Amino acid sequence: MSVRKAIWGDSLEAIEQALTEVDPDLYAYIRDFAYEEVLARPGLDLKTRELLAITSLIGLGAPKELATHLQGALNNGATEQEIRETILQSALFVGFPHALGAMKRFQALLRKQG
Amino acid sequence: MSVRKAIWGDSLEAIEQALTEVDPDLYAYIRDFAYEEVLARPGLDLKTRELLAITSLIGLGAPKELATHLQGALNNGATEQEIRETILQSALFVGFPHALGAMKRFQALLRKQG
Amino acid sequence: MSVRKAIWGDSLEAIEQALTEVDPDLYAYIRDFAYEEVLARPGLDLKTRELLAITSLIGLGAPKELATHLQGALNNGATEQEIRETILQSALFVGFPHALGAMKRFQALLRKQG
Amino acid sequence: MSVRKAIWGDSLEAIEQALTEVDPDLYAYIRDFAYEEVLARPGLDLKTRELLAITSLIGLGAPKELATHLQGALNNGATEQEIRETILQSALFVGFPHALGAMKRFQALLRKQG
Amino acid sequence: MSVRKAIWGDSLEAIEQALTEVDPDLYAYIRDFAYEEVLARPGLDLKTRELLAITSLIGLGAPKELATHLQGALNNGATEQEIRETILQSALFVGFPHALGAMKRFQALLRKQG
Amino acid sequence: MSVRKAIWGDSLEAIEQALTEVDPDLYAYIRDFAYEEVLARPGLDLKTRELLAITSLIGLGAPKELATHLQGALNNGATEQEIRETILQSALFVGFPHALGAMKRFQALLRKQG
Repeated sequence: MSVRKAIWGDSLEAIEQALTEVDPDLYAYIRDFAYEEVLARPGLDLKTRELLAITSLIGLGAPKELATHLQGALNNGATEQEIRETILQSALFVGFPHALGAMKRFQALLRKQG
Repeated sequence: MSVRKAIWGDSLEAIEQALTEVDPDLYAYIRDFAYEEVLARPGLDLKTRELLAITSLIGLGAPKELATHLQGALNNGATEQEIRETILQSALFVGFPHALGAMKRFQALLRKQG
Repeated sequence: MSVRKAIWGDSLEAIEQALTEVDPDLYAYIRDFAYEEVLARPGLDLKTRELLAITSLIGLGAPKELATHLQGALNNGATEQEIRETILQSALFVGFPHALGAMKRFQALLRKQG
Repeated sequence: MSVRKAIWGDSLEAIEQALTEVDPDLYAYIRDFAYEEVLARPGLDLKTRELLAITSLIGLGAPKELATHLQGALNNGATEQEIRETILQSALFVGFPHALGAMKRFQALLRKQG
Repeated sequence: MSVRKAIWGDSLEAIEQALTEVDPDLYAYIRDFAYEEVLARPGLDLKTRELLAITSLIGLGAPKELATHLQGALNNGATEQEIRETILQSALFVGFPHALGAMKRFQALLRKQG
Repeated sequence: MSVRKAIWGDSLEAIEQALTEVDPDLYAYIRDFAYEEVLARPGLDLKTRELLAITSLIGLGAPKELATHLQGALNNGATEQEIRETILQSALFVGFPHALGAMKRFQALLRKQG
């Protein structure tokens, strides 16, 4: 299974189509370099990689991409608790505002899933 | 064992003394809130927490604190490979310059340890 | 009076309820550590602390939290002019785009209050 | 022609009015210092200056100002390809999430123009 | 008295000479726009402006400029306690690593002064 | 000629050896993806790409990498004036402290070259 399938799950086709329309070359790099080369490397399991991705994105303040990897963490076996701890810990390093913003986004995602 | 002991290892007393001299109140918050409350929470093991800390610090560009948590990750069972993967992955999210800076710091730490 | 009451004013109950639903542990840290411990410290009055908070949030680019502390500054005696000067000065240090974004947010808040 | 006219094009009057209402002093600095002094300097043509502005704004994660300068680059002779390359290259330095966000914004601007 | 004299104190001539050698045009903007226009505005006293400057610089992670404004705050009547509180509070908004780095720099400055 | 040769010039072998020792996989990505794929794309000349790289690095506050691309810009035909304008303009978008830090680094590089 591709890393994109593992992280994007049922959204794979929708994301592929949307990003290809945004810029096919940028999407090709995201697909071939970011997902299927770097995130596909051995040495760390995908669940851990997704918790690290969440942490990077909290620091950037990039809410749209954050939502993708909050879902990606759930899709790869991270529990709700593990994701909450990941977000909560980030408050120590990048401050409460970015951590709170991320937790609100996680709450919104959980509510949408019911 | 305190979380500080687990992360700082043999440097515990030196770090405690240095930070107390810097500012006793700030150190008290770092000790009682950051380490012994938040990082001590259940739900994520300390090795994973240290990989997340490394990721936050790469995004901040905070080299001194990064060195502390690179050592802290090693002290809690992270392998050299896991730490290299953590740094390498961060290039995707925060760019190559910060990732390269972190990898250089990790190389320096490994060399110092022989 | 609690620091939260001083900063959040009439929104206290709404904010408490919303943040508790987002994550009760994160809210407990915001309440007990951020507001009632750190922001409650002597040495700086709350008006100055809120101008400092605004400055931190402009640098982060965190618009939602910024609105809270723009209101918090007004609630603690900061004049409209003092807040405008705080935002304007930040352009020197973090650039015009973040300063302009903050000023727009302040304008929106003032308009809502009529 | 003023630098503002060259960059803002037909939006000049609307932007001037909006920013004056936001804060007349901040707008005066943006007009007299940022645009008509610094961006008006010789040594770099306006097209190059706008590509540099886009690059700065991608790193900041400031989407509203980014849209202004994406349009400003087009208004000063940058081709769609040059702007896409500018955004794409930024992924190397500040990571894929900010680059992707910028490319989505550029796509939205191109679609609005038909 | 110029704002530069108030903030830079006895270092005025050394700083002027050094920055002029770095780039005379950039220094002219720092002198005429940043210091003698924006920081010279009424509405906030220089002590408060320097605490705000410190806060902006902690978020940026810009240690050299931070040292200048830590000294500038002392030169304009800020007490050691007020500066420590300013730094300490920033941990809430931008995280402990940047706050700790700033406090270490303040300690170094205090030690140099004896 | 490889893009690395064009940007790194006479330092090519020294940089290759140093980065390979830091982490061979990270270096392989920098070589094959960052330099020989993305920076090698048509649509923007290398001089412009290096001015954009400088701009990204000023925003990051990454001084070591900044020095590499300041030299890279000179190696690809950027004049001293064009680089000074690039740095100076960045003050508008990311603030004076980062711009000043970059200009000091450029001064140091020019002095070393005599």
